[in-house]
Amino acid sequence: MKIGFIGLGNMGAPMARNLLKHGHALQVFDLSAAACGALADAGAAVCASPKAAAADAELVFTMLPAAAHVRGVLAGEQGVLAGIAHGVTIVDSSTIDPASAQEFARLAQANGNAFVDAPVSGGTGGAAAGTLTFMVGASEALFASVSPALGAMGKNIVRCGDTGMGQVAKICNNLLLGITMAGVAEAMSLGATLGIDPKVLAGIVNTSTGRCWSSDTYNPYPGIVETAPASRGYTGGFGADLMLKDLGLAAEAARTAKQPIFLGALAHQLYQALSASGRGGLDFSAIISLYERHGAQS
Amino acid sequence: MKIGFIGLGNMGAPMARNLLKHGHALQVFDLSAAACGALADAGAAVCASPKAAAADAELVFTMLPAAAHVRGVLAGEQGVLAGIAHGVTIVDSSTIDPASAQEFARLAQANGNAFVDAPVSGGTGGAAAGTLTFMVGASEALFASVSPALGAMGKNIVRCGDTGMGQVAKICNNLLLGITMAGVAEAMSLGATLGIDPKVLAGIVNTSTGRCWSSDTYNPYPGIVETAPASRGYTGGFGADLMLKDLGLAAEAARTAKQPIFLGALAHQLYQALSASGRGGLDFSAIISLYERHGAQS
Amino acid sequence: MKIGFIGLGNMGAPMARNLLKHGHALQVFDLSAAACGALADAGAAVCASPKAAAADAELVFTMLPAAAHVRGVLAGEQGVLAGIAHGVTIVDSSTIDPASAQEFARLAQANGNAFVDAPVSGGTGGAAAGTLTFMVGASEALFASVSPALGAMGKNIVRCGDTGMGQVAKICNNLLLGITMAGVAEAMSLGATLGIDPKVLAGIVNTSTGRCWSSDTYNPYPGIVETAPASRGYTGGFGADLMLKDLGLAAEAARTAKQPIFLGALAHQLYQALSASGRGGLDFSAIISLYERHGAQS
Amino acid sequence: MKIGFIGLGNMGAPMARNLLKHGHALQVFDLSAAACGALADAGAAVCASPKAAAADAELVFTMLPAAAHVRGVLAGEQGVLAGIAHGVTIVDSSTIDPASAQEFARLAQANGNAFVDAPVSGGTGGAAAGTLTFMVGASEALFASVSPALGAMGKNIVRCGDTGMGQVAKICNNLLLGITMAGVAEAMSLGATLGIDPKVLAGIVNTSTGRCWSSDTYNPYPGIVETAPASRGYTGGFGADLMLKDLGLAAEAARTAKQPIFLGALAHQLYQALSASGRGGLDFSAIISLYERHGAQS
Repeated sequence: MKIGFIGLGNMGAPMARNLLKHGHALQVFDLSAAACGALADAGAAVCASPKAAAADAELVFTMLPAAAHVRGVLAGEQGVLAGIAHGVTIVDSSTIDPASAQEFARLAQANGNAFVDAPVSGGTGGAAAGTLTFMVGASEALFASVSPALGAMGKNIVRCGDTGMGQVAKICNNLLLGITMAGVAEAMSLGATLGIDPKVLAGIVNTSTGRCWSSDTYNPYPGIVETAPASRGYTGGFGADLMLKDLGLAAEAARTAKQPIFLGALAHQLYQALSASGRGGLDFSAIISLYERHGAQS
Repeated sequence: MKIGFIGLGNMGAPMARNLLKHGHALQVFDLSAAACGALADAGAAVCASPKAAAADAELVFTMLPAAAHVRGVLAGEQGVLAGIAHGVTIVDSSTIDPASAQEFARLAQANGNAFVDAPVSGGTGGAAAGTLTFMVGASEALFASVSPALGAMGKNIVRCGDTGMGQVAKICNNLLLGITMAGVAEAMSLGATLGIDPKVLAGIVNTSTGRCWSSDTYNPYPGIVETAPASRGYTGGFGADLMLKDLGLAAEAARTAKQPIFLGALAHQLYQALSASGRGGLDFSAIISLYERHGAQS
Repeated sequence: MKIGFIGLGNMGAPMARNLLKHGHALQVFDLSAAACGALADAGAAVCASPKAAAADAELVFTMLPAAAHVRGVLAGEQGVLAGIAHGVTIVDSSTIDPASAQEFARLAQANGNAFVDAPVSGGTGGAAAGTLTFMVGASEALFASVSPALGAMGKNIVRCGDTGMGQVAKICNNLLLGITMAGVAEAMSLGATLGIDPKVLAGIVNTSTGRCWSSDTYNPYPGIVETAPASRGYTGGFGADLMLKDLGLAAEAARTAKQPIFLGALAHQLYQALSASGRGGLDFSAIISLYERHGAQS
Repeated sequence: MKIGFIGLGNMGAPMARNLLKHGHALQVFDLSAAACGALADAGAAVCASPKAAAADAELVFTMLPAAAHVRGVLAGEQGVLAGIAHGVTIVDSSTIDPASAQEFARLAQANGNAFVDAPVSGGTGGAAAGTLTFMVGASEALFASVSPALGAMGKNIVRCGDTGMGQVAKICNNLLLGITMAGVAEAMSLGATLGIDPKVLAGIVNTSTGRCWSSDTYNPYPGIVETAPASRGYTGGFGADLMLKDLGLAAEAARTAKQPIFLGALAHQLYQALSASGRGGLDFSAIISLYERHGAQS
């Protein structure tokens, strides 16, 4: 299958490589010549524009930082919609707000193309290993048509509903993740301050009603989960600035939909404060640093 | 073993029954004559005061609503400390603040007695079935000495550290539980407002990084988990006013220890608002009602 | 002076009337024929489009609900920019986000026109009386050129800085207003619950460090300030949904600028909850209803 | 008049001096010999215990850090109640929770004495100048009987209601103050980040609906109010740890009364975080430091 792929960053590049490994022919574009060169070495054809990458393709993927980039890549003069053949489907794996995804679907439809939102979870590790989860917003027929190609890059391909619902699933999950991680940070910090052994506390929580992924798999307290970023100085993992972006998308979607999100709005501000303190490049579990006590009288 | 048992409420009564079933002799006291009568029918000796219930006992249990009651039962003129034999241990399974537990241990010690904090989780169902979890604050030797009796009432008997640490484990777990439940309520409500099928969203969350007990076992959105209170009108389960009490204990412990708990303090206010609206008697997952939209323009 | 005026709603209509009273010739446009007719009766010339209203005008005013409307009125096919003469200034008194105001200034400049943001405070009463405050974002020269016309509609014409700074001043003031109003609601509600006479408490606060406009002029507790909406069932005044809109603008500006606003984000959610409960049409001081206790045990 | 005075700290010492200046005879007690010595130099009789200071006194004042100290000073073996004559009134100017004040009144009454809560505002400057505000909880007759002595130390003597209502007034005012100060910090920080001149913004706010004492008299942004702590490195003024204490009293009173205080609970955590970062000794307007952006990408 001939596939256009636009956006070869930390996530896009390994995803594109997995398509190549599964025997697809790739036409790639990225603003970075180095990123393009690396994919060329792996066998992809490098194109001069999104328009060129989309020309003759049977499927087009985009993997970009934010909705504004997707808009430019789709609708720009040298954009995908200018080059894509009638009837070809565009799959966007960027994490963006649902309303923008729905707007892009309308733009694509007006051009005679289908548009699928398919944001991912699993991080750069999952992208390299081909084990990503894809949360897909598409009709059942469209979902069936794009699933095989997605299967080359991920192992869980889940239809979440119609257009935009992939993004809804992603931002709602990450809204909850941002809250639970800060919640675990609070519970662990309070426990430690009150004198309990953090390992004992984590053991209790993980077998009780406080159990959650943020505690049992990715605990923010150092030394609890050996493989978690907290046990290696909060490096690697899912960056706090990315969590901040996703909470911002949730906040914006909630604002537009007039839906209160009390804890989510506060968690958003906490990650904002973490980022404002210069620690946005650390793993998001570094949110626990907001709860540290320095020089305080206890 | 002859055991004194003070406090025969919704939790204490079935706990006391399980001690009887395991062959212990019980001397019980409660302010409610009806509660005492029911235990008498089951074979317990009813006493006229905590002092009398503690006399000749080899072990004394207390299961009371709050620290003020424990203080009265221990230190009152007709209290446990006035009747208990030198060297006998007191086990308090009430949920109270850690500082009060530590204060009671000092009172007991001055009287020649050991004091163990052993709050429980598992609810009235676990109390009846004898499957409670006990979170125990005691030295290793003391823990070993009280474990057999606790084993008659629960299946997980966990030493959390020295005196007070059982309470710390309990309030830190429930702090996190209060946060995750409200967080799930937000994520489910936002998703539903944005148009995703709540069952699909729960499915995604439960296999992803937002996974938590509040979502996969006790989801607050109706119809997601058949056995959860949300699927039966928020009746039964763990009352919102009890969660409010536990968050209040966490807030008070954090205030005294000068430890920030941003989300916990906000969650505390949310459950307070739920209670203030007259819904404190519902299961705590009814917190999702704070996120409902009535007559709003969307 | 011949002035184009687009947007004849609750605020725009009385503002336009004041321009007429000061002898200006008006070319007006609104989607509502009734609104146009009322202005025609007052002496304005009704036009068929923003483009027509701007044609031959020496100055153009816009007063619209949100940025999307301003964008349409300016840049649409029948928009102001299509009809306005080179060099004529556009003054937008809508409350919108600062970034959009700056974008509109660039659009205008590309068309050979200046654009001034001049949001107002003072409400419909101030609009009718000609006593509005205008918060103006414009160069000093531009400010000087538009001030006389603004003086026909308001009594405080304040230059806040260059383009967009009028909007910044407006949303920062209203962010603080939303916070102080909820803060006064909390302090008054807590005091009343604790047993102090609310009038006595307000008297203390108003002569002490808690003093603020939300307490001394617009107290949300009924019966404290006779002229405040709280003393007439929260009717009239500044609608809660308008406060919600302004807090949303502040939240969005803060999100984009990566600036934490802890209390503002929470206040935003509180007004959102008020609106979601169906009370968004009441005065914003009705936020105090979130603090009422019904059927709670105290 | 012979007056007993217990507690000669930063506030108590200058208050006691003002009583001496007005011709009263003072019997003082403090744990610090240095503090006692300084008052002896000013003409007071130093006593060996609260009991001794209360003996023969016609009125007794206490000015102590917290409720636990007041309890000890009143009810200890060498306490005020052990030495005071029947019918003599005790005036406590400490800031404590209303419930404790009411408990102390009952203790005093059982001893044949009246107890008045009379917390102050005005700081050490007001204490030295004799210009404090006293918020008094007492019956009208009792208020009349203690007012003359209070008048030697303050210029506003306000009856807030019966016992405990002085404390209610104090903590409700300071709850609002803690909120408005953080709110001004947010509005000023957001404005500055968005590009407005902070002096211009403060000018707008101070003449508009955002107006409050925290903005017009004590603005937390440096350089806005010359006499405010913000313009001298946040030194002097009202310490952040004192604000933290008062917000803690409000939180505890609200928890006990089951009254939600959303913004207050969050403000409490913000001051807690400020204190935990080691800045609790600065003026409370240093809360603005939580909103600073370091190394953040904007």
